[in-house]
Amino acid sequence: MFKAIVSAETLRTALDSVSVLVDECKIHLNEDGIEIRAVDPANVGMVDLSLSADAFESYEADGGLIGVNLSRLEDIAGMADAGQLVELELDEETRKLHTQIDGLEYTLALIDPDSIRQEPDIPDLDLPAEIVIEGADIDRAVTAADMVSDHIALGVDEADELFYIDAEGDTDDVHLELDQGDLIDLQVGPAHSLFSLDYLKDMDKAIAKDAEVTMELGEEFPVKLHFDIAEGNGHVTFMLAPRIQSD
Amino acid sequence: MFKAIVSAETLRTALDSVSVLVDECKIHLNEDGIEIRAVDPANVGMVDLSLSADAFESYEADGGLIGVNLSRLEDIAGMADAGQLVELELDEETRKLHTQIDGLEYTLALIDPDSIRQEPDIPDLDLPAEIVIEGADIDRAVTAADMVSDHIALGVDEADELFYIDAEGDTDDVHLELDQGDLIDLQVGPAHSLFSLDYLKDMDKAIAKDAEVTMELGEEFPVKLHFDIAEGNGHVTFMLAPRIQSD
Amino acid sequence: MFKAIVSAETLRTALDSVSVLVDECKIHLNEDGIEIRAVDPANVGMVDLSLSADAFESYEADGGLIGVNLSRLEDIAGMADAGQLVELELDEETRKLHTQIDGLEYTLALIDPDSIRQEPDIPDLDLPAEIVIEGADIDRAVTAADMVSDHIALGVDEADELFYIDAEGDTDDVHLELDQGDLIDLQVGPAHSLFSLDYLKDMDKAIAKDAEVTMELGEEFPVKLHFDIAEGNGHVTFMLAPRIQSD
Repeated sequence: MFKAIVSAETLRTALDSVSVLVDECKIHLNEDGIEIRAVDPANVGMVDLSLSADAFESYEADGGLIGVNLSRLEDIAGMADAGQLVELELDEETRKLHTQIDGLEYTLALIDPDSIRQEPDIPDLDLPAEIVIEGADIDRAVTAADMVSDHIALGVDEADELFYIDAEGDTDDVHLELDQGDLIDLQVGPAHSLFSLDYLKDMDKAIAKDAEVTMELGEEFPVKLHFDIAEGNGHVTFMLAPRIQSD
Repeated sequence: MFKAIVSAETLRTALDSVSVLVDECKIHLNEDGIEIRAVDPANVGMVDLSLSADAFESYEADGGLIGVNLSRLEDIAGMADAGQLVELELDEETRKLHTQIDGLEYTLALIDPDSIRQEPDIPDLDLPAEIVIEGADIDRAVTAADMVSDHIALGVDEADELFYIDAEGDTDDVHLELDQGDLIDLQVGPAHSLFSLDYLKDMDKAIAKDAEVTMELGEEFPVKLHFDIAEGNGHVTFMLAPRIQSD
Repeated sequence: MFKAIVSAETLRTALDSVSVLVDECKIHLNEDGIEIRAVDPANVGMVDLSLSADAFESYEADGGLIGVNLSRLEDIAGMADAGQLVELELDEETRKLHTQIDGLEYTLALIDPDSIRQEPDIPDLDLPAEIVIEGADIDRAVTAADMVSDHIALGVDEADELFYIDAEGDTDDVHLELDQGDLIDLQVGPAHSLFSLDYLKDMDKAIAKDAEVTMELGEEFPVKLHFDIAEGNGHVTFMLAPRIQSD
């Protein structure tokens, strides 16, 4: 059983954080909210999204699992105006999701969850550095880095107590340094890793400019990005594997 | 003789309703206003547009007939700002239409009306159901239907006294029901017909969101859509032939 | 030595006037401001841009010459919001230009000036007619002309004391006449020349709608367009060679 009403905006924000990595996903319809975990086909980027029942106008579920085509569900959410509500109801027999926006019904055929790539276990890493940064700063660094390179280094300078972003192109370079004062918070530790800019660009799309993003970083380790959505009633964790550094 | 001044906005609105179906058309320059009738090459969609002399700032004509390239005339209207006036004057000798917007003259070569597809006679059907609906509701139904299918069913449920729109895709379906309360008016009668979504999408483009659209509908019959433009000084009728229903 | 701070908007406006003609250019870093002169590969359009030290928030230079990739420098300026400042500093040893926007550093590799097409000498022509016209009027004439033709005639009617723009297409024509009252100023003289619309469209892109443009014109002579940028602290001159008139 699953029956819920949610604002189109909240639904879109939640789906966006997953659809930047995968086209299809499994959605856990837990009693206290929904959860989605997914990994991209190359096993490089992972997402863990939870949206609690409080993020919905109304929410009833008893622990089912459905498989959905994300772009279809985003199309549905996209039909609504920002203020409008989307009603969702699972028909267990036909395995279809009935959606309704102001009287307009869209019946979405679900996908067999077994046919969808297995959900990842996002490892519980104990990373030495933690940076709390505004979404807007990630965005401008990623945008600038993209002009010169296809990978980006994230690191912490322990001596100078600052977080830095580096992108080295064939001719041009981009560099951003943010210290305690520029950041929301900084916990220094040995950290420097190189990442694919393509993935970080996709993740950046799902991060609101005014989001407070907690970044966990190590040396040649994956980066984890955490942030709240839906006014704190939802949470997203991205994890991105490092690229091997060639010198 | 033809000499008229019209707001760029009125001219654009009028031309749009015809250009969604055809590239060229004949324009009757009657004493009391202009009239355009046109049918698309496949004989599926027809339009009958009338724009009375009252829709113009000034209007003088004595019954001529001209042939025009619609996209050219739309380009001209498109050069003007919404509030600007477009002056039109026919040069009978050279068969050119002189247009002027704030001093900028554009001389448009006309097309021999005989070389343009014959104007349709829009049949005077006596259709059993009549629905008066907001343009915005047509728009959202057509937009949603387009996500799942390339045709759309319009019908009336006589028992429940409601108008419905149905689109069945290979996996997903879209359905909208509007009753007396949702509609501006509803006169029930036996009605259910299937239409090509491509045509309805084109017609939808020419319908203002806040337009009051009268829809006449029957069983496996064409649909007629009527609405006013130019603050009631113009009127558009679209007619769309049904598709044969395959089951 | 070169070290300067300039608003992103001023930098973008200045670069745009050159980048519509060429991809790379030499920039003279004079003591009293920067200067750029460039000619397009076909030797048809030229630009002379000067931006005085007063256009900058701060400016220090001692007469160097650098070569830059314009689209790269425009990308950098494009990263900043309109109100933001761009810091520029030349590293003479590495021949790189260090730029910085709110802490974000972008290091731009410079190009050997000797590898860039030679700067043109913009001839000091004594053209008989001078028209002072709003950028908006050039824009609408060029936009309209582009619908019918790929070249455009600019001229002055000495008898009627007016400036005209003419574009003759295969079927349609565009014509604009502006007299003393429509123009900011007009000094009549024998003038009629034909120009490539492609070049004029590019130059038009770099002219603000509210700019006061001084146009110097003759018979089968190049046209010169002058206008101020950066609130009078910068100046642009475009020169466009005429096309041979075929009748």
